[in-house]
Amino acid sequence: MTAEAILTRFREYLVGPSRFMTLVSCFELGLVDALRDAPPQTAEQLAAVAGVKPDAVQQLLYLLVKDDFLAYDETTGTYALGGLAEVADVDLNRVLSISRLIKVLMLRQGYYLTESVRAAVPVGLKEFYGFDGNVYDAALEHEELFESWGKTMDMYTAHIDPWFFENVDIPPGSRVLDLAGNTGLGAILTHKLKGSSGLHVTTFDLPEKQDAALRNFREHGLDGQCGFIGGDVFEGVPSGFDVVLIKHFIDMFDRSEVLAIFKGVRDAVEVGSLVHILVPVYPEDIRDSYSVDFFPAFFLGCAMGKGGPQKLSTYRAWLEECGFEVTRAIAQNPADMPADSWSAQGILSARKI
Amino acid sequence: MTAEAILTRFREYLVGPSRFMTLVSCFELGLVDALRDAPPQTAEQLAAVAGVKPDAVQQLLYLLVKDDFLAYDETTGTYALGGLAEVADVDLNRVLSISRLIKVLMLRQGYYLTESVRAAVPVGLKEFYGFDGNVYDAALEHEELFESWGKTMDMYTAHIDPWFFENVDIPPGSRVLDLAGNTGLGAILTHKLKGSSGLHVTTFDLPEKQDAALRNFREHGLDGQCGFIGGDVFEGVPSGFDVVLIKHFIDMFDRSEVLAIFKGVRDAVEVGSLVHILVPVYPEDIRDSYSVDFFPAFFLGCAMGKGGPQKLSTYRAWLEECGFEVTRAIAQNPADMPADSWSAQGILSARKI
Repeated sequence: MTAEAILTRFREYLVGPSRFMTLVSCFELGLVDALRDAPPQTAEQLAAVAGVKPDAVQQLLYLLVKDDFLAYDETTGTYALGGLAEVADVDLNRVLSISRLIKVLMLRQGYYLTESVRAAVPVGLKEFYGFDGNVYDAALEHEELFESWGKTMDMYTAHIDPWFFENVDIPPGSRVLDLAGNTGLGAILTHKLKGSSGLHVTTFDLPEKQDAALRNFREHGLDGQCGFIGGDVFEGVPSGFDVVLIKHFIDMFDRSEVLAIFKGVRDAVEVGSLVHILVPVYPEDIRDSYSVDFFPAFFLGCAMGKGGPQKLSTYRAWLEECGFEVTRAIAQNPADMPADSWSAQGILSARKI
Repeated sequence: MTAEAILTRFREYLVGPSRFMTLVSCFELGLVDALRDAPPQTAEQLAAVAGVKPDAVQQLLYLLVKDDFLAYDETTGTYALGGLAEVADVDLNRVLSISRLIKVLMLRQGYYLTESVRAAVPVGLKEFYGFDGNVYDAALEHEELFESWGKTMDMYTAHIDPWFFENVDIPPGSRVLDLAGNTGLGAILTHKLKGSSGLHVTTFDLPEKQDAALRNFREHGLDGQCGFIGGDVFEGVPSGFDVVLIKHFIDMFDRSEVLAIFKGVRDAVEVGSLVHILVPVYPEDIRDSYSVDFFPAFFLGCAMGKGGPQKLSTYRAWLEECGFEVTRAIAQNPADMPADSWSAQGILSARKI
């Protein structure tokens, strides 16, 4: 790399925050909506819709014209949908939902990334919400965090969990433990997507999740086939299960904690028992994705103060170190993912040996 | 543009804030400094230097390795300077200084861009500093703003003002007015770079700048050749000057205010008097630069709640609308600027007709 090439990359980094804000603001002000299914409009017309000055509309829309999101007609001085007209609503909604998550969970908190790494807690949550702890717990108390986080995660989970269950082996009649299973959604999905006679799924999570989990089971008519055990995975994993699911969990932790989780599971199950893990993974060649552009700052600066995904090969090595034989390790194919995605999920299946 | 191309661009936008933070944090934690003039080091060694966990070092450095800022040796597990070794100190210091400005003046404040545009004031300054007003005034009261803003601006002005004075005509013995000349730096530079027998330069700015300006003149031995007039440009421009300089000023305002400034100058000077303007400009084809990625969010969201640069052709038209003949309009050649720059300055010279 020449110095010039490196300085050119620096420029990309430097304009990253302002570019993101400008795009988000054009949507928040309703400028894009005003151009949907409507004739081309001038800055003055759009300004009237948004209740702002035409000068500001012109300034903000330069970027969207530059990048072909919108089209600008010099002759008439009007804006119209450009490339955005080609984007399906479902895709645009996903992108806007993720934008909202980034704005609310990351933009301000990112100011404290260095302090968060030093303290190993997300300092921004303390600064902006007065909250001591991680973003998942903070979201239970703060509506703004819950709304921006929950909406995106619901969209995401609905898409990714079916892929997980398609790709894992849960033998008929298994006794399944859903580790860190929150309020029971994973248990319910296990029955829906891998149901079999005699199948029983137990959600294991902190005791305060119990009431909501049991209510969810009842509402889905699964009282008899689901159960809840309250506890902390770092203090011991319940025994008596043939299959352990670990979904959306281990990316929150550093190596020593992931190893502690794996060892806890190993000590709790019999030889031959299965573990299935769902986790975002970095590609083996990190040049192939944008995931390292996003995740370190997210986990270290905004969510946990620690953690972050690993490569499939790293998780495989850690499982083997803890007494498991990995029977399958796959990652989503980027070609099957929307073009705006930076995060491929992986599935690791393993057997205690 | 296809939907896929647009979604791919969205991804670039979405990772912008996290990518910026990660880079900044690697420098703030001293990880890059630790690799300068030192043998390659492991994550554990770097973590010990920075006082953080090795897991966090690995996570953060993925991005710098991906983008060739650093090099990683898989065999030894060590990091070394990669492309950053090629970057001269003066260039790196400039980039880090601008990074600091973006972090302090923009990252958190950008959260309020939409509100700032609606209110036409930089709401983030109120939220984070309890300050009502623009960032230039806020910097006078808040050390953190002053330090990040002032350092970058000093570096920038030292570079750009000589280019300005090389390219403007200030006839010997002129009576010059430096409009919004702050504490007199422009007046001093005029003498240094365009000195002539009988030349006299008057700084015009708010009365509270007077003491500092007069002190600066004395310190430079220019008491007799410089003066200060206190006032507000929107309430009247002093008369009796052959040349008016307007540097680093009109980009702060919307069209109606820029026209008011031009008309104020026109009404204050005789026919044939000169005006020289220095201002960042958007290129005529905005696809040619990153300036629209940066400036709208900076001026609207962080600095003023309004304003932003225009194209040279726009400023030319506004000058003509106000009774000036534009004699010269030039912009910096991007090829002459460092590769990390996004902002070309322009010079417009005009004569009252």
